[in-house]
Amino acid sequence: MTDSAGSEAASVLGRLVAALGERVDTDLAHLDAARADKSGHAADGLPLAIVRARDVGDVQETLRIAHATGTPVVTRGAGTGLAGGANAGDGEIVLSVRGMDRILEVRPDDLIAVVEPGILNADLNRALAAEGLWWAPDPASREISTVGGNIATGAGGLLCAKYGVVRDAVLGVDLVLSDGRLLRLGHRSVKGVTGLDLTSLVIGSEGTLGVVVGATLKLRRLVPGSPRTLTASFPDVRSAAAGAAAVTASGVQPAIMELMDAACLRAVHRLLALPSPRDGVAQLTVQTDGPAATAEAAAIAATLTEAGGTVRLARDEAEAELLLRIRRSMHPAMETLGTTLIEDVSVPRSALPAMFDEIARIERAYDLVIPTVCHAGDGNLHPNFVFTGDDVPDRVWQAADELFRAALRLGGTLTGEHGIGVLKRRWLADELGDDQWELQRQIARVFDPAGILNPGKVFAP
Amino acid sequence: MTDSAGSEAASVLGRLVAALGERVDTDLAHLDAARADKSGHAADGLPLAIVRARDVGDVQETLRIAHATGTPVVTRGAGTGLAGGANAGDGEIVLSVRGMDRILEVRPDDLIAVVEPGILNADLNRALAAEGLWWAPDPASREISTVGGNIATGAGGLLCAKYGVVRDAVLGVDLVLSDGRLLRLGHRSVKGVTGLDLTSLVIGSEGTLGVVVGATLKLRRLVPGSPRTLTASFPDVRSAAAGAAAVTASGVQPAIMELMDAACLRAVHRLLALPSPRDGVAQLTVQTDGPAATAEAAAIAATLTEAGGTVRLARDEAEAELLLRIRRSMHPAMETLGTTLIEDVSVPRSALPAMFDEIARIERAYDLVIPTVCHAGDGNLHPNFVFTGDDVPDRVWQAADELFRAALRLGGTLTGEHGIGVLKRRWLADELGDDQWELQRQIARVFDPAGILNPGKVFAP
Repeated sequence: MTDSAGSEAASVLGRLVAALGERVDTDLAHLDAARADKSGHAADGLPLAIVRARDVGDVQETLRIAHATGTPVVTRGAGTGLAGGANAGDGEIVLSVRGMDRILEVRPDDLIAVVEPGILNADLNRALAAEGLWWAPDPASREISTVGGNIATGAGGLLCAKYGVVRDAVLGVDLVLSDGRLLRLGHRSVKGVTGLDLTSLVIGSEGTLGVVVGATLKLRRLVPGSPRTLTASFPDVRSAAAGAAAVTASGVQPAIMELMDAACLRAVHRLLALPSPRDGVAQLTVQTDGPAATAEAAAIAATLTEAGGTVRLARDEAEAELLLRIRRSMHPAMETLGTTLIEDVSVPRSALPAMFDEIARIERAYDLVIPTVCHAGDGNLHPNFVFTGDDVPDRVWQAADELFRAALRLGGTLTGEHGIGVLKRRWLADELGDDQWELQRQIARVFDPAGILNPGKVFAP
Repeated sequence: MTDSAGSEAASVLGRLVAALGERVDTDLAHLDAARADKSGHAADGLPLAIVRARDVGDVQETLRIAHATGTPVVTRGAGTGLAGGANAGDGEIVLSVRGMDRILEVRPDDLIAVVEPGILNADLNRALAAEGLWWAPDPASREISTVGGNIATGAGGLLCAKYGVVRDAVLGVDLVLSDGRLLRLGHRSVKGVTGLDLTSLVIGSEGTLGVVVGATLKLRRLVPGSPRTLTASFPDVRSAAAGAAAVTASGVQPAIMELMDAACLRAVHRLLALPSPRDGVAQLTVQTDGPAATAEAAAIAATLTEAGGTVRLARDEAEAELLLRIRRSMHPAMETLGTTLIEDVSVPRSALPAMFDEIARIERAYDLVIPTVCHAGDGNLHPNFVFTGDDVPDRVWQAADELFRAALRLGGTLTGEHGIGVLKRRWLADELGDDQWELQRQIARVFDPAGILNPGKVFAP
């Protein structure tokens, strides 16, 4: 920081403190923590301050000061992102909405809830369950990630093929623009086509268009009955992927269908002190729910057996819990292997076997092991690049580059549910094309003409 | 038209004919027909020509000429809109994509189809049914409206509460910009969050952002089993609305739940030569589907009986067809009453009884009869303002103004599924607020800097 930049920063900080008092946090450890998210990537330099907003007025006031002084603002919830989208660097204001965590309204008769952005997904769902309701988006991070963060990234999860993604579950958002003005986007009714759908545009926009300070969520009633759970082991990952594709093609819709490749399965079994699986063995974990859960589980078991799988159908909830625990232990198991870069490509479901072939090819070409877990019901893969040390080695980025290009070739996308953030911005134009990339950047500029909202994220060259 | 405007028009027409030959239609009767849609409203003046595009290249060529000459372009499918959004006036080029009606790809294993915009919704669904698939959006116009038109308006229909609206059923669109460049928006995978969601932005944008020349649709498998159908008669419309709200609150999800008020029911019974219903009697028509159809129909019958309804459960398909025919005869029955302005407000489902109170109040205040049919499962009402002559009388617009304001007060929207077009543009800012209205207009300008796409629609002051 130069001297004049330093005195400007002091002036911005002075205005924030004058306006927002103790909501301005300059604790060095807190500032340092705001540089990183769960991707492990950290921004350069130290942010100026964290504003811990308690209400919409705090957000508006922060943005007015940022706008007047041309200071970048990074909106942050729980900091559980995986693409660096909420990482704040040198001289930036961190605008934390984590403290805005109230449920403002629940309407069982209209199946909607109005919430603040900082509430944790799981806390919301615990409150809704008491009324027999739920909000369907279920990212694996749901115990630690906020609804606002889920909206900012357009989060997915395990249940998406049957119950949809965040975009399907939000009717409206309240958005503070970069100059502090508050807009109410969307509606409270099931249908509504008044003007352009800015609600959908904000979902997945990763803090570049405005600050989400409230959301009207579309709820579902809790699914009646008990779910049924089964696993199917296959001799190799390709046949497991083919098994998953056969389930999709059969027309029976599981609630959850997860695939773990051999490297994942081995690491998890080691972590949980279970007997080591045979070499190469991959596993599907399937759950059905609703009134036809038992019949659907039986039909899926038959399809997977026919496809060469060895099926184990949980007889009771305890056994189901054990089977699910293997899938849920994936991330802790990866941490035992080294530092991981968790990737997030998505392909049409029929392309899953081909995508696993590509991953195997990249493993050989780069002499890497890439343990991969996959939401096989919707074609979203999370290949984990494992390495030692804090920084992603060039070789891993080269391998990731090949992974992204393979996904695009197969009709897929760079990111199914984690977003672009900083880690994927250099590939964004590869998927969008230069014309669309430029159009998107111009749209972001309409919302934020001065470019103070999350600069360097998503669209940065 | 002035002389110089006339010679400019001749020059544009010359360029179109030189480039597109016999695809340029200047038949006066055809030009006249392109001035109006099913709303009855017609644009002033006569369009310059109709370009009957056969492929993407035709669309691009037309837009290049329009862009070079600053000529307005009105994209048109089957012309079945109800808000005047595809009506073409003086000197405008009508770009018809009705002839681009091919199904390019159907993938049962990925549950997607890729289609051209001009295919009729019902033709698509007949082709998909042969493979056990369907595209869920089912506007009442499905036999005569195109998929491209459904996308342009963000159409709804009868099944939306259970199976979603167009926005939930489109993964990507191919869009030709106003200068002729082609963009491919969206993706083919279930999940995808790469950059801003321009696909959703295009859905419902009514021809103001670009020309949709292709769409990747999210399909469903045909619902197994036979649906069950029932009607419930209530002594007045308010109790029928309360009955519908009780069904929603009970947690059982009908596929269809339609409400006809007394004036509708009387007109339909007269048209079909059925015994006249008692004064004031309103009726719900409900259909359940899927594996639990019979149990759900019984549960709904119990709820509606409890709510004071007289329930008739169809014993077989013939009787079900008879019950549904009453609802389907709504539009022909309205045509027997006079000219109608079909309105389209939507409110949260719990507000339905209050909205019917407002309609009754407006009927009394303006000495009008406003027969109203309602998608009660999702809170979308179609009040029909009946009058004589071709032009909507001022008194009817004043009553409609009160209707829109009442819907907004109840937390609803101006339009659930028909769009803004020209008929509702003067109310758009009332719902969006001035700041959002201006922001939306600026976003449209990013797509179409010269303002040649459907000028005067949606955002015109």
